[in-house]
Amino acid sequence: MANSNIDPANESLRYEYVKAFEQPDLLIPNTWIVVRIDGRGFHKFSDKYAFEKPNDRRALDLMNAAAKAVMMELPDIVIAYGISDEYSFVFHKSCALFERRSSKNYSKLVTTIVSTFTAYYVHFWSTYFPDPGMQLTAPLPSFDGRAVQYPSVQNLRDYMSWRQVDCHINNLYNTTFWTLIQKGGFDAKGAEKELAGSLAADKNEILFSRFGINYNNEPEIYKKGSVVFRDYELVEPGVSEAIDEDSAKTIEQKELSKTQEEKDRKRRAKARITVQHVDVIKDEFWQRRPWLLSNKPGKIPKEI
Amino acid sequence: MANSNIDPANESLRYEYVKAFEQPDLLIPNTWIVVRIDGRGFHKFSDKYAFEKPNDRRALDLMNAAAKAVMMELPDIVIAYGISDEYSFVFHKSCALFERRSSKNYSKLVTTIVSTFTAYYVHFWSTYFPDPGMQLTAPLPSFDGRAVQYPSVQNLRDYMSWRQVDCHINNLYNTTFWTLIQKGGFDAKGAEKELAGSLAADKNEILFSRFGINYNNEPEIYKKGSVVFRDYELVEPGVSEAIDEDSAKTIEQKELSKTQEEKDRKRRAKARITVQHVDVIKDEFWQRRPWLLSNKPGKIPKEI
Amino acid sequence: MANSNIDPANESLRYEYVKAFEQPDLLIPNTWIVVRIDGRGFHKFSDKYAFEKPNDRRALDLMNAAAKAVMMELPDIVIAYGISDEYSFVFHKSCALFERRSSKNYSKLVTTIVSTFTAYYVHFWSTYFPDPGMQLTAPLPSFDGRAVQYPSVQNLRDYMSWRQVDCHINNLYNTTFWTLIQKGGFDAKGAEKELAGSLAADKNEILFSRFGINYNNEPEIYKKGSVVFRDYELVEPGVSEAIDEDSAKTIEQKELSKTQEEKDRKRRAKARITVQHVDVIKDEFWQRRPWLLSNKPGKIPKEI
Amino acid sequence: MANSNIDPANESLRYEYVKAFEQPDLLIPNTWIVVRIDGRGFHKFSDKYAFEKPNDRRALDLMNAAAKAVMMELPDIVIAYGISDEYSFVFHKSCALFERRSSKNYSKLVTTIVSTFTAYYVHFWSTYFPDPGMQLTAPLPSFDGRAVQYPSVQNLRDYMSWRQVDCHINNLYNTTFWTLIQKGGFDAKGAEKELAGSLAADKNEILFSRFGINYNNEPEIYKKGSVVFRDYELVEPGVSEAIDEDSAKTIEQKELSKTQEEKDRKRRAKARITVQHVDVIKDEFWQRRPWLLSNKPGKIPKEI
Repeated sequence: MANSNIDPANESLRYEYVKAFEQPDLLIPNTWIVVRIDGRGFHKFSDKYAFEKPNDRRALDLMNAAAKAVMMELPDIVIAYGISDEYSFVFHKSCALFERRSSKNYSKLVTTIVSTFTAYYVHFWSTYFPDPGMQLTAPLPSFDGRAVQYPSVQNLRDYMSWRQVDCHINNLYNTTFWTLIQKGGFDAKGAEKELAGSLAADKNEILFSRFGINYNNEPEIYKKGSVVFRDYELVEPGVSEAIDEDSAKTIEQKELSKTQEEKDRKRRAKARITVQHVDVIKDEFWQRRPWLLSNKPGKIPKEI
Repeated sequence: MANSNIDPANESLRYEYVKAFEQPDLLIPNTWIVVRIDGRGFHKFSDKYAFEKPNDRRALDLMNAAAKAVMMELPDIVIAYGISDEYSFVFHKSCALFERRSSKNYSKLVTTIVSTFTAYYVHFWSTYFPDPGMQLTAPLPSFDGRAVQYPSVQNLRDYMSWRQVDCHINNLYNTTFWTLIQKGGFDAKGAEKELAGSLAADKNEILFSRFGINYNNEPEIYKKGSVVFRDYELVEPGVSEAIDEDSAKTIEQKELSKTQEEKDRKRRAKARITVQHVDVIKDEFWQRRPWLLSNKPGKIPKEI
Repeated sequence: MANSNIDPANESLRYEYVKAFEQPDLLIPNTWIVVRIDGRGFHKFSDKYAFEKPNDRRALDLMNAAAKAVMMELPDIVIAYGISDEYSFVFHKSCALFERRSSKNYSKLVTTIVSTFTAYYVHFWSTYFPDPGMQLTAPLPSFDGRAVQYPSVQNLRDYMSWRQVDCHINNLYNTTFWTLIQKGGFDAKGAEKELAGSLAADKNEILFSRFGINYNNEPEIYKKGSVVFRDYELVEPGVSEAIDEDSAKTIEQKELSKTQEEKDRKRRAKARITVQHVDVIKDEFWQRRPWLLSNKPGKIPKEI
Repeated sequence: MANSNIDPANESLRYEYVKAFEQPDLLIPNTWIVVRIDGRGFHKFSDKYAFEKPNDRRALDLMNAAAKAVMMELPDIVIAYGISDEYSFVFHKSCALFERRSSKNYSKLVTTIVSTFTAYYVHFWSTYFPDPGMQLTAPLPSFDGRAVQYPSVQNLRDYMSWRQVDCHINNLYNTTFWTLIQKGGFDAKGAEKELAGSLAADKNEILFSRFGINYNNEPEIYKKGSVVFRDYELVEPGVSEAIDEDSAKTIEQKELSKTQEEKDRKRRAKARITVQHVDVIKDEFWQRRPWLLSNKPGKIPKEI
């Protein structure tokens, strides 16, 4: 090409029409955006590395470490929730707005989360699985993801509740299933049959009466999943104002003053990101942490 | 929850309506799909690790190694093309069809590519940057991506040509720019000014007359970028049939017999994936490698 | 075909794959959907039928009649707003939900509105333009349309306010422009020049001081546009509850009992559809007509 | 508002953010676009006006008249195909390109077709149903529609074949069904039962042996549906060049010279639009009318 009489800049013009095939895929402003990622083929992957059943604490800690790192890099995420090999990241409806307006779009948002999460998952692997026999080899772990838009706080909270109820259902099942196998002498098929059609109460009963296990005493991380968020001082119940659906409106119209935005950014950067295994279904969690829904950073707790 | 009188399975039903907010994002069948990924903030990233200018061979080799690994894991990709911190992966219009019909969708396709590429990029980093001072630290490298659909072979080839012409334009500019700085004593601003408005011929002239550099002798990997594909025996020019736009049609209608598909899969798995730095703009590249556009695996070359 | 040995049902199977090219285009649940339609080439159309300037009352009445008919046929529309040759139809965020869940989608919603509106516009034409010289001839009037989703009540109200402010801006301009021409002896270019850069106050002043026209006394239909909705008994200011963003939530979760839904449908069918020329920007309009945002039918006013 | 101290132009700015909620919905260039419209609730509608069974010639002629009018107004449509209360309009992949590039989008395309068709359907109604008892009354006929993109000529032709095979299947069934009722003394249930599981040959046999009807002698309009296109001189079989998938490419790259485009437009405008009831499944139809796929207007036939 270099010797061609045609200048390559003109050559480029000839092909540039292909850019017109790119479809815009903007997100709707003023919606809560949830990006949920899932491990690809993690059943096989967990076999390859002999993950402990029903829960492998190292694998969950690795997921949580990667999720924390994602939240460090993307301060627009207000909360994340993880169970098993899946993680949901929530962008505040007002904050992400500015990015959505400009060039940010669906593809960019989803792929950025997926890529950043994957990078840390692979990077941190040897910290959580230091055994030399556990080194990562091809095929490497990877994740797919998608974004969903929720118009109201209630929709968002119901999404979070849905995932946490799922966590509970799966963990109760898996705990009982693997106890039957590991302590009850069942094989997989037998355990499956034993549990077919059973209700939650039945599984609790099996665990308690046959194996002396009180499911309530199981570790919270397994029962509740992992909730990741910026840690500010908790607000007394009753003190916090009602969630204001239209707080975002003010932001849309006035657009936050640059100084206020800068201040908020700094406070957010100072806040410690915490991983907790708590109930997100009841109101209390959200009422005591008003910053999650308001997107206004709270008070940094005093260190003791 | 475990003690609640309400069975969590019913609890789950209450929240499941949130699934209805997920939007389907299917791809149109019978189109060539190009997933292009780009390094996020790689200008800053390349500064952090002091990448050599204008090209860092180690960084390009790492990109190529990650791209090869992606193609190993996703046999539906027929060809990939990389320059700098970007890579384009091409799915054949007929082959990917089956996946598009079922549950595969835009999000899944793009995030799978981005995640798999990122995983290998991070994993192979220390192979290409073994120096202890070069270990990866946060923020880690990551990539975003998007998919574009091209209806015709000509559109696809024009896309590939567009990227390769871009590679040439950028590399000629960068080579001249950095030579002015590294050997000509210019600072960045001065070099920029020197090159403002210059044509390709001007830059060739600057390199040759001032610095004795013949741009044509620069390494092909910098001038042409990297083309990744499965390696079969080349076909003699003229022997190959014309590209048949509607070959895919037969596939759509009859659907390949399972046995044929199985055979093709095995042949593809045997094929070596090669990285070459060759012209993809002229017809010759495509005529001698008919399997790229036909998606019918060629002959495995005899090893000597 | 009829004589073919191949049964046409099998023949059909051969081609049915083309259905896979149809892309789903669902709307996000729990959003306010606004379908706005616009007259295609109405500048030319209004010339052809010599519409009066700046406003042709017959043309506006025809638009309103068509809009009312659309609302009669589609009871899920809670309010509509029209100016000039455009009309916006608003679907309640909760009510339309059921349709969105099933097979209803973006295309169906938009095309149904556009088609129904067009049908009545053409059908009612001769009622509003009975003059034999005004009979419709090809090219006939037609409309295009698009749907926009608004997540919050505030977004929806801001949309309505935006259209009504636009109505005011356009009408003040057009009234002054045409007065300059019709009574001031200006030609179009001269009038345009006279108004360039003028503020609202300037235009009011021109009308008043030069032509003795008090803009405030202009007909409300021209100044405010047309608001179409079901007419129930107005609610005393202060009595109505605050707008509850999450009223829809209950509906989503419980789904209205069939009987309640049936009752609502009947009450809605009984309600008279009214066209008014009132302010929709201030709170009062919405507070006194709580059924618009709650989607719960109000009390049918007693006939006297 | 007029008296407010705030200029309404500023007021408008406050609300204009709502425009950001409009999602772009561009079509992919270089694809064949089919807009298919369907009568809404035409089962009920055909009962209301007592359409003749199995086919009402007046209703079909009205559909065809409306389709012809649509093609007159939108010269980018190359061919249309109608059966019963549905019509498909095909935009050429190259020609529509220019519109797709600019502001034209999915919504505009679909709603324009649907609205124009509806306008003519209502307008021409009294021509085809002149009986005073047949005057249109609310609810008026209306249509919904959607667009589908086909990447290749083969996909497009398979779409057309699919609709025509469907026409044949439906008409053979309906003809037999209604003959059983009208001449065989069956009621609807009985006729349905009689035909359950029957093949095409069986239905032909029923018609012939019981009622002396040779299905092949039925009118072509019922058996083949209606094909609408611009009429040029037919080309001798064998003379026409092979369909060139990539003819569009040249257009994309060079963009037709303005003069050529202008010439083509004029020739298209001169061409008569014809409605024929012919086979579009076999190659012959397309080979003898090369202008349909090439989008280059043919020779205007000499009038005799």
